[in-house]
Amino acid sequence: MTDRRPISFARGAPSLDIIDVEGLRAAAEAAFTHDPGGLTAYGTSVGYLPLRQWIADQHGVAPANVIVTNGSMQADAFLFDALVTAGDPVVVERPTYDRTLLSLRKRGAEVHAVELEPDGIDVEALERLLASGTRPKLAHVIPNFQNPAGYTLSRAKRERLLELAREYGFVIFEDDPYVELRFSGERLPTMRSLDPEAVVYASSFSKTVAPGIRVGYLIGPRPVIAQIEQLAVGAYISPNMVAQGIVNEFARSGAIDRSIEVVKRALRERVEVLATALRREIPDARFVTPEGGYFMWVELPAGTDVGALFAAAAARGVQFVKGSDFVLEGAESSLRLAYSGVTTDEIDEGIGRLAEAYREVTAG
Amino acid sequence: MTDRRPISFARGAPSLDIIDVEGLRAAAEAAFTHDPGGLTAYGTSVGYLPLRQWIADQHGVAPANVIVTNGSMQADAFLFDALVTAGDPVVVERPTYDRTLLSLRKRGAEVHAVELEPDGIDVEALERLLASGTRPKLAHVIPNFQNPAGYTLSRAKRERLLELAREYGFVIFEDDPYVELRFSGERLPTMRSLDPEAVVYASSFSKTVAPGIRVGYLIGPRPVIAQIEQLAVGAYISPNMVAQGIVNEFARSGAIDRSIEVVKRALRERVEVLATALRREIPDARFVTPEGGYFMWVELPAGTDVGALFAAAAARGVQFVKGSDFVLEGAESSLRLAYSGVTTDEIDEGIGRLAEAYREVTAG
Repeated sequence: MTDRRPISFARGAPSLDIIDVEGLRAAAEAAFTHDPGGLTAYGTSVGYLPLRQWIADQHGVAPANVIVTNGSMQADAFLFDALVTAGDPVVVERPTYDRTLLSLRKRGAEVHAVELEPDGIDVEALERLLASGTRPKLAHVIPNFQNPAGYTLSRAKRERLLELAREYGFVIFEDDPYVELRFSGERLPTMRSLDPEAVVYASSFSKTVAPGIRVGYLIGPRPVIAQIEQLAVGAYISPNMVAQGIVNEFARSGAIDRSIEVVKRALRERVEVLATALRREIPDARFVTPEGGYFMWVELPAGTDVGALFAAAAARGVQFVKGSDFVLEGAESSLRLAYSGVTTDEIDEGIGRLAEAYREVTAG
Repeated sequence: MTDRRPISFARGAPSLDIIDVEGLRAAAEAAFTHDPGGLTAYGTSVGYLPLRQWIADQHGVAPANVIVTNGSMQADAFLFDALVTAGDPVVVERPTYDRTLLSLRKRGAEVHAVELEPDGIDVEALERLLASGTRPKLAHVIPNFQNPAGYTLSRAKRERLLELAREYGFVIFEDDPYVELRFSGERLPTMRSLDPEAVVYASSFSKTVAPGIRVGYLIGPRPVIAQIEQLAVGAYISPNMVAQGIVNEFARSGAIDRSIEVVKRALRERVEVLATALRREIPDARFVTPEGGYFMWVELPAGTDVGALFAAAAARGVQFVKGSDFVLEGAESSLRLAYSGVTTDEIDEGIGRLAEAYREVTAG
């Protein structure tokens, strides 16, 4: 069985067929032609200025509220360096992005994981935590098509979170890389747009252009951005001007809008095939079909040994990420399926093999 | 006088006329054509693998001893994070690159500045420091065409430094971004090549391709590189694949060799014009004409107020960096002139104005 073609539901990255390589090549050509000096010089710690301006315009903020970084992971690291010191309480969703968990634990933060529900973080549980005396510096929230769950924070909960942030004096870190990838339902306002003073907002071009371009950004109140500018100078003088110049051309030429349409169309199709295959092949699986993004969270009956399932699937060439990787403890019978990097044929085939593996580990 | 065209001897960066913009555009085109998957995917924390291989081949090491980063400043930061904790003694040259000083002081290192002589760091002074009981973790040395002094470490001192490193158990951080820019004299072996276990070596494509491409690298013993790989994952997942893919094509196509020749020819010409102009216009100035690189260190007679000269030059549209920026204390009558970003006409004109400023501040 191990000679079957590998199928990965593990990697949260797009397949090459939905990346506009030709558009990127044209954007590179245009960028070197239009602004050779800007692309090749050191530039500034805040990023390539025309791209920073474009981002500011998209969000209706001043450029001084924006810093463009080498990917949004680097932006997260700067923000944590600026705001979080060892022992500081920080709220995260449960489950949440594994690298965020690692990054906070590495800094010695006191991580409070608050349950994520299909309409977003359990704001009542958060309120109880706050009322009990915990005073977080920061609450990290992925509002749209959350990684790993695929869930989206409701409008009502967005507003409630902002009320709590104002009342208890913490910063909401709105981590929003998937926002442009909504393929069904209605777009919701960002928390940043509802209260710019309470929120630091992060996003990225990894999902709308390509991950390898490594361009992300933060939007926030000027004092936080100014502090992060200093961290950026110390870390790397300036971020990648060539990559940011290419993104700038890709964005301003309209290629980014076409790219987003291609990506959304593929994701919509893939998620439908995935949901259908799961219902057919593993009727025990419980999930909420995402309205956008890359990920679906799948819960198997309590007691299912997802560690064993992982091994049995791997023996069939199928990869996924165990739910337990996204929590401090628990989630033993859950898993994350990424449908961004697999074609519909691979999804059908992969879920068939996953079902075989499931039957094997639950037999007897 | 303030309406005269500004001339900057301050910035250690190339002028646009010596950057191969057309070659970069062609390299971008080729990179997206040859390896669209590699450029657009996340890649790995160690860098774009074909470029890492090219660097390894150039230095005659295994790829596992190389990590490619977002500029060499980021490489320095990783190395300091890996090896230096607050209170650790670290040796630097006096004067040295101002950002290195800042970076070490920010980490709380106990910085020991050892005098730099025209043939490199004063190894006898270093030996006295070591004999007195100081046990540095690291000695930071810029061996070729040092920033800010333009001096080059002699072969004999390279060997002596390595002996001291082995005897006293410290790591030599050989920071070598200018090595390819030798325009006169004989190339010397890197300390890394003489003793790979005692040295971590850093270099960059900022001076051979362009600063805005932000690609640097470290070469070192496997345990150090492995530690830095972990820091890189935590900082940014992976460095910029697009930029590194472009550098890879630029390097493998031979464009980099032509670029280096163009840069060296310009620097050789500029340094000759600069030395001639200084001798003619400011006979008091003492300097060693560099054999490569971007910088010349100029000492004015003791007691010259370089702070006042800085202001008087600025009033004439001429910028330089005060010597005192490159030391913990002292160097009050020295300055650094960068000739990388100015044409020969600008050098003649700029030194003329600098001489006017010098006569003004030394008059009476």
